[in-house]
Parts: sequence; structure tokens; C-alpha cells
Amino acid sequence: MNPPGRGRLIALEGIDGCGKSTQARLLADSLDALLTFEPGATQLGKAVRRLALDATLAEPVPRAEALLMAADRAQHVDEVIRPALASGRWVVTDRYSGSTLAYQGAGRGLGIDDLRPVVDWAVAGVDPDLSVLLDVAVSTARLRLAEVSPDRLEQLDDGFHERVRSGFLTVARQAGASWVVVDGSGNADDVSAEIIRAVEDRLGRPIPPPSERLLPHV
Amino acid sequence: MNPPGRGRLIALEGIDGCGKSTQARLLADSLDALLTFEPGATQLGKAVRRLALDATLAEPVPRAEALLMAADRAQHVDEVIRPALASGRWVVTDRYSGSTLAYQGAGRGLGIDDLRPVVDWAVAGVDPDLSVLLDVAVSTARLRLAEVSPDRLEQLDDGFHERVRSGFLTVARQAGASWVVVDGSGNADDVSAEIIRAVEDRLGRPIPPPSERLLPHV
Repeated sequence: MNPPGRGRLIALEGIDGCGKSTQARLLADSLDALLTFEPGATQLGKAVRRLALDATLAEPVPRAEALLMAADRAQHVDEVIRPALASGRWVVTDRYSGSTLAYQGAGRGLGIDDLRPVVDWAVAGVDPDLSVLLDVAVSTARLRLAEVSPDRLEQLDDGFHERVRSGFLTVARQAGASWVVVDGSGNADDVSAEIIRAVEDRLGRPIPPPSERLLPHV
Repeated sequence: MNPPGRGRLIALEGIDGCGKSTQARLLADSLDALLTFEPGATQLGKAVRRLALDATLAEPVPRAEALLMAADRAQHVDEVIRPALASGRWVVTDRYSGSTLAYQGAGRGLGIDDLRPVVDWAVAGVDPDLSVLLDVAVSTARLRLAEVSPDRLEQLDDGFHERVRSGFLTVARQAGASWVVVDGSGNADDVSAEIIRAVEDRLGRPIPPPSERLLPHV
């Protein structure tokens, strides 16, 4: 499942405003990994994201929303993630399967366990080597989000976001060693150091390509 | 599962060019049923259909295509089909779950059995009371299609359409009594009579609303 030449996939997960995007960037920089995101990293995904999140278009029912997110992810896996991993590149993605389980499974009430087979089928075996849940209180996330323009999902009430937060914690608990929960309430540099430590503990670091390894250290 | 006041759902299935749309219309007329179709019967579905079928936009990978079709269906069920059935209306749909199993499961090679749980989850229990497979040879369907402008799915080669036809026959065989296979190669009126007879044999006819039943026959 993890041949030596294959890269590693790390997913950053958490509620809107948890600091995930900043932390995904810092982690990808540290690992010299490919940084990507969901939903909307592919041409198809951009259109799917617009359909799922733009309230001025049709509003999808919860099952349709979950299936659109899964469609975006299937395309993302085949076009971006699997080829990068196969070439030996490490990949950091800002959101992955955990977000669908938490947002649509817990937040929208579809049920994490009922939704899981659909979410699993969509990735065709490309599971993260590690998912990092950046856990923050909904009130903290709200303050951070106040500066940016919220989309439809972010406009939902605190009850929704509490369900999503609790959904993420459930998914992390069920997964065991393939998820790690990091407190995201501190400053960005401290949180980043903790994430990098957690990743190195579990996955080590990417092996540099032979050309770099052969360079003399001056 | 079928309370007396609930309508019945009948799906017309088959390869492109089998005469399904004509037959769906004739059947709906005969039953005074709501006539609907997939993909694209809702506002969301129209956009999803464009994404899935328009080759000038991004081309979805097979899993993404299947998930988009399932998203269209989830929206169709909640917005159109379930409310009509709940009001006592009979519903005839031009394509339903069987089309995703045949086109993406068999045609695209995702596997009918692997895809079935995803397709089942999308409809949330709203299964057809009867699915009618209009079976015709691919060569017959091609001749009928020659007049109309083909979309991307229809442009695929004969091997693809043979797999889809055979996929439909497999799905019908696995389903047993909830599917009926009708030879679609005859003229439209004869085929329509056979479909109506098959539906009446299995489901009877809609009970007219009380107002109509009380009307004196002049």
C-alpha cells in the first residue's frame, strides 16, 4: 500500500475559520509538498464548488450536496493527487473525506456511518496517510472569519458549526492512529510547529530526490 | 412501503435511441401520470447535466460522472418525485437508477455491484415500483439516433453501447419482479400497448381522485 517510491497524503481538516488553510500552506512549505485543496482544485471541481456553495444558484438538498462534494473529490484524486503520489511527491490537501463526513454527515444530519461508504467509494483507495484535525471552538472560528466574506456554508448558524466540530472529533476518534487532533487556538507559528512535529513522528520526512542527496554540503 | 394513498413510480430505462422518451410520454398520458426525466429535471440538475455531458467543459472521470448523476437524482427525488408520490400522483421517469448502473457501472467499467450502494444511497428509499427496460439492438438504436444531435455519451463507440445494453439486462435479471424487459424494436404503438399491459398487470391503474369518481357517467 505504501511502496517506497510513493509519496504521502496528508489532509488538514477542521471547521471554517480554524486556520486550516494557513496551516496547510506552512506544512506544505516545510515538507516541500504539493499543496492542494477541496472543493474546486480541478476545472470540473470549480464548477461543482460553485453549484454546491453559491446560494444564488439552485440550493442542493443535503444528499445532493454530499454527492457533489464526493464528485469533486473523485476528480481531484484522479487528476491531481494520485499522479503526484505515484511520482513520489508528498501532497498536503486543505480538506478531504473528513470534511464531507463532518459537514454533510454530522452538520446536515445525513449520518456519518451512512455516508461513509459513499465517501470511501469516491476516493477509490486513496486514503490519507495522516489527517490532521485543527480543533478550535466555534466562537474562536467566528472571530477569525469575521474579516472574510462568508459563503453559504459559513453563513449557517452556530448549531450547525457545533455539529460539524463534534462530527470531526467523532471521525478522528473512530479512525484512531490515522488522525491526529491538534489544538488550533494558539498562534499560527506554534500550531504549525506542533503539526510538523506530529507529521514527522508518524510519517518521517520526504526523502529528497537523488540529485539533492548527492549534492556536497558546502 | 406502499400506503394506499401513495402514487407509484415507474422508470423507463434503456440505451440511447431505444425509444424510451416517446414511450415514457405515451405511458404517462395513458396513466395521467407526472412525466419527468433524468438527468436535468431540476434547476440544480440542469447544471449538473451540463457538467456531466458537455464535452467542451471539463471531462469528468468515471467515478465523478457517476456521483454527478447520483447528485442529480437525489435532487430530483426530493424536489419532484417524492412530493408527487406523497400526493398520490403516479410518476413516470425517463431514466432512473438503472441508467447509472448500466452507463457508469457497466459502460464505464466501475462495476454494477460496486456502484450499487452509492446509487441506492442517493435515492433514500424511493425505489421504482416497476422499471421497464426497453431493449433494442445497438444497431437499431444507432439508426434512430442518426436524426438527432448526439451528446458526448452518445458519441461513444459501439463497444460502449453494447456494454451498457448488457448492463441493463444484468440489472433487470438481478432485480427480478421489479423490472420487466420489453422488446423495443417494433413500432411505437405496439411497444406502447405492451408496456401499458405490463404496468397494469403488475401495478393496476391509478385510482382517480374522489371528485372524478363521483362524476356521473353521461
